[in-house]
Amino acid sequence: MSKNKVQIFDTTLRDGEQVPGCKLNTQQKLVIAERLDTLGVDVIEAGFPISSPGDFTSVEAISKLVKNATVCGLTRANEKDIQVAADALKYAKRPRIHTGIGTSDSHILYKFNSTQDKIIERAVQAVTYAKTFVEDVEFYAEDAGRTDNVYLARVLERVIKAGATVLNIPDTTGYCLPDEYGAKIKFLKENVKGIDNVILSCHCHNDLGLATANAIAGVQNGARQIECTINGIGERAGNTALEEVVMILKQHPYLNLDTNINTKLLYSTSQLVQQSMGMVVQPNKAIIGENAFAHSSGIHQDGVIKNRETYEIIDPADVGVTESSIVLTARSGRAALAYRAKNVGYELTKIQLDDIYPQFLKFADHHKEVNDEDIHHLMELNHISKSKIAV
Amino acid sequence: MSKNKVQIFDTTLRDGEQVPGCKLNTQQKLVIAERLDTLGVDVIEAGFPISSPGDFTSVEAISKLVKNATVCGLTRANEKDIQVAADALKYAKRPRIHTGIGTSDSHILYKFNSTQDKIIERAVQAVTYAKTFVEDVEFYAEDAGRTDNVYLARVLERVIKAGATVLNIPDTTGYCLPDEYGAKIKFLKENVKGIDNVILSCHCHNDLGLATANAIAGVQNGARQIECTINGIGERAGNTALEEVVMILKQHPYLNLDTNINTKLLYSTSQLVQQSMGMVVQPNKAIIGENAFAHSSGIHQDGVIKNRETYEIIDPADVGVTESSIVLTARSGRAALAYRAKNVGYELTKIQLDDIYPQFLKFADHHKEVNDEDIHHLMELNHISKSKIAV
Repeated sequence: MSKNKVQIFDTTLRDGEQVPGCKLNTQQKLVIAERLDTLGVDVIEAGFPISSPGDFTSVEAISKLVKNATVCGLTRANEKDIQVAADALKYAKRPRIHTGIGTSDSHILYKFNSTQDKIIERAVQAVTYAKTFVEDVEFYAEDAGRTDNVYLARVLERVIKAGATVLNIPDTTGYCLPDEYGAKIKFLKENVKGIDNVILSCHCHNDLGLATANAIAGVQNGARQIECTINGIGERAGNTALEEVVMILKQHPYLNLDTNINTKLLYSTSQLVQQSMGMVVQPNKAIIGENAFAHSSGIHQDGVIKNRETYEIIDPADVGVTESSIVLTARSGRAALAYRAKNVGYELTKIQLDDIYPQFLKFADHHKEVNDEDIHHLMELNHISKSKIAV
Repeated sequence: MSKNKVQIFDTTLRDGEQVPGCKLNTQQKLVIAERLDTLGVDVIEAGFPISSPGDFTSVEAISKLVKNATVCGLTRANEKDIQVAADALKYAKRPRIHTGIGTSDSHILYKFNSTQDKIIERAVQAVTYAKTFVEDVEFYAEDAGRTDNVYLARVLERVIKAGATVLNIPDTTGYCLPDEYGAKIKFLKENVKGIDNVILSCHCHNDLGLATANAIAGVQNGARQIECTINGIGERAGNTALEEVVMILKQHPYLNLDTNINTKLLYSTSQLVQQSMGMVVQPNKAIIGENAFAHSSGIHQDGVIKNRETYEIIDPADVGVTESSIVLTARSGRAALAYRAKNVGYELTKIQLDDIYPQFLKFADHHKEVNDEDIHHLMELNHISKSKIAV
């Protein structure tokens, strides 16, 4: 694997699917898993096999289906979980067990009523046991975001020795700022023996709206896997959004990092997940929201009509959206009105435009949006007919 | 003003309202403006007065209504715009004119067909003219995110001399990474003569999902105003979300930065904007989304029941949400089932729980969510009656 390739670990079917209302049946999960495989994700986290019989069945079926991606199952740090996960993954071409335990003081004290040394022992035991089933074992240090870096480094050194191939550093509560999370990854890259033989992974939660920025800070500082979901769904405020990190790396070539994702499938994949989970995406969601490429202010519309790149850094076609749109509202200027009128067949002269614009504004002030129908009506009122050259 | 106070400049009624479908009438805008004033924002950008007669009327009405916040109107860098804005703001207790011009090569060449020197001239003229009407003049260097830092510094030095009180550094296209945007603010703090006498402001767009992170990087590097909107609405993928930056500063006291916002009003304000604009917020939206405090995975629920802070960094009450919720799904563990059963009156023994849990899972595997009704039904099937002590 190239040093500059960032692995995309999709957890839409695990961290995403566990969300209130997002539950899918096995058939629905298979459709999404197949699409993720086509999209080009490197790892599909298919579920948490011990959690329920239905989830076990789904992980097993996904393992049979997926052709290219690694298929991963989540476990806690105990033999039963790991054994059941290994079972569910036995048909996978590339199986991975994802095991781990909480490492922050809060988790060690309140959740496990344990000590730092005992937690390391359990971590090592879990990884060692998982290695008896599969070669590829990812270890998560839950709540790593609030774990002391020196202790975290100790834990990681031990699980690397036990055979872990990927180390997941979750900001479980979504607390870190990007510079903090980046510094944590940097510290681990510099202080953990054996770290260069494994992959560091970012798993960031969005409680403060920083999941995407934190994951990017992670890969800027040496991590080479990002755990993410389509549309950023997931526990509470969700996870890093796959479409965001992929497009950030693509739009910043100087970072010299890229992914295997076919970005032209991002929009349709987002729609598929949205529809099957019934989990709505807000119009102002980056990259795949309904308004992501809609220009409405007069100043912006004027700029975009002159040159798309004035206000648009991503070509909508790159993410599978047909085109950017110039939406007519009371904030639109003359240029936008002329542009949209031309689109529906009217080549306005400057004098005609000056005449019509105040009427347009008056109408628009009382309507959310001015559509093609309204334009035709406005032209009719002003006795303007379609130009011959227009389509 | 304290050096560590970050001014919150709300542009829900300008950058937010210009979005497709978000149009409000004057009465609706007044309700939101009054709420923003109560919420504690420092500046309300009320509109773009020259854009339409309706917008002029709204800015004027808001100017009359608002008691505490500065009321601001947007203009381009020309006399007509500025004159009309001054007119609309004449009843404001604290009026501010927000004027500016594009400074990136893309804007100078394609939008204005001009030169760097001519743009500086127009910027200075606009600020000078605005100062004839109001004391408080904010200058925006549009597309500053893609503007060469050295040229940007030259522009800013000249507008400070002309009397600008606030300098807005917009990442208009949402292109910057947090470290880039932070470095830009740092460069300006260190290289612009007179910069310590004015306020640097962050106006970030969310095209890559980084608007919140960029604004935070800005204030970490010396900016002292954040331009943002409720729910992060705004042009295309929207702006920095007010609720996110406010809670980030509150949750990271070591940054030594705070705002005047009454956070307990965040949730209800979000609801108000959502309802009046018809602009839906996705369930996994940070801070104010429906699921922001909903725990559904078994591992997380177990942790939260033992100690809220294991998985929750924000007390829901701090943002006006009544309580966090433990949602029962097929990913829930025994602890969550026992907790929710207790909430509706059943104190289960360990033996009862072991009996019922597999039945619960089987049921949950076929349902998106298990509600109180379902719990009662499950108990009935197992002949378990309510405990006397329970409510």
